[in-house]
Amino acid sequence: MKENKYDNPVFFEKYSQMLRSQKGLEGAGEWSELEKILPDFAGKRVLDLGCGYGWHCKYARDHGAVRVLGTDISEKMLEAARLRNAGPGIEYRCAAMEELDFPEDSFDIVLSSLAFHYVRDFPQMVSRIARWLTPGGSFVFSVEHPVFTAYGSQDWYYDENGKILHFPVDNYYYEGYREAIFLGEKVGKYHRTLTTYLNTLLEKGFRLVHVVEPQPPAEMLSLPGMRDEMRRPMMLLVGAVKE
Amino acid sequence: MKENKYDNPVFFEKYSQMLRSQKGLEGAGEWSELEKILPDFAGKRVLDLGCGYGWHCKYARDHGAVRVLGTDISEKMLEAARLRNAGPGIEYRCAAMEELDFPEDSFDIVLSSLAFHYVRDFPQMVSRIARWLTPGGSFVFSVEHPVFTAYGSQDWYYDENGKILHFPVDNYYYEGYREAIFLGEKVGKYHRTLTTYLNTLLEKGFRLVHVVEPQPPAEMLSLPGMRDEMRRPMMLLVGAVKE
Repeated sequence: MKENKYDNPVFFEKYSQMLRSQKGLEGAGEWSELEKILPDFAGKRVLDLGCGYGWHCKYARDHGAVRVLGTDISEKMLEAARLRNAGPGIEYRCAAMEELDFPEDSFDIVLSSLAFHYVRDFPQMVSRIARWLTPGGSFVFSVEHPVFTAYGSQDWYYDENGKILHFPVDNYYYEGYREAIFLGEKVGKYHRTLTTYLNTLLEKGFRLVHVVEPQPPAEMLSLPGMRDEMRRPMMLLVGAVKE
Repeated sequence: MKENKYDNPVFFEKYSQMLRSQKGLEGAGEWSELEKILPDFAGKRVLDLGCGYGWHCKYARDHGAVRVLGTDISEKMLEAARLRNAGPGIEYRCAAMEELDFPEDSFDIVLSSLAFHYVRDFPQMVSRIARWLTPGGSFVFSVEHPVFTAYGSQDWYYDENGKILHFPVDNYYYEGYREAIFLGEKVGKYHRTLTTYLNTLLEKGFRLVHVVEPQPPAEMLSLPGMRDEMRRPMMLLVGAVKE
């Protein structure tokens, strides 16, 4: 079984207090940019890898998807998803995304939000997604930005008075496992370069249609710490089409 | 006239001592990766924006280009180019790239090596390049990586003993002018995000075919400071095709 922090009760409780857990899509800083690059869901079969609370699954279904499968490694997340974002045509399944398998041409759209940085082998994952997708199908995902994952701690660099000096980057070309502190708990993540994220897609037969580093939306800048998010890129959104 | 540091005699002298000036393509750390993403030059009309010493112009001509125009803002650079990389079918012209103009469909390939970070308005430059290129034509360029240009100083962050701690990133989403020290001289450059580099191409009708952050080649790792280049991305190489 892959590492699964979200079934740890302390961690899950903290996660459930986050704005994105409480408010859903509108509570996620990157949502307004992500929504812009989503494909038309009408009549489509959708897979959401690492679906968490299922907000994107519900959104896809509400926007015309005929069938939505949300998968997540955490049973606790899926419990919350079934509670908050259930509906006819939406199915939730507990599985590590590396262990999923589907026949060729099973989906028209594959989504994944902030989950691939938990996956060790991204190129292999992309190969499998390419097989599951129908030609012309869309693959849209968000990940933590390589700038954000390179150093490991995912924290600012401070002066002796605790004031932020800058964000540190190190070991950029050394891909692999890092331990960060997230919500006060140690969380393991995989750093990879932008080259690996984007060139892998190109090599596996995808066309890139969107590459966006979302800035915090103006209306969120008054939230604690949000203005500092203008100082570093934290996320990367990618939209691609299988050719 | 745009800022042109290269006609400053002190700066030019220092630049001319760099490995990439002395040894040409083989002296440039990114060349082995750049060469891999160059298009086939046979029978093609090539424009090189910010051609410097003309190494890429000569390479294009030696690989079958029928006509090569190299442009640079520095007369001193072009003098060196005419001396070292002249040849029938190669023309060098002194001009700021923002002030160039050509009819539609003038070139099959547009190259630019480490020059766009001197250009204030990248989207406008891309629009003009798209017009000059023939449909199906290639646009291949290198720039300093957004991680490298964001903070401004382009220098590592050191401890009190002068040991490198990490590379600092700051003000990432605040695009615009920065002053760095390069070869001991103040040089003005424009920082822009990865989103601006890549999404601009997509919006202006280019297909992305390569996105590469070149690592230092193994045989160069013994050169002073080169091993540290594994710790930060310094350059970004992009290959695109006009559709």
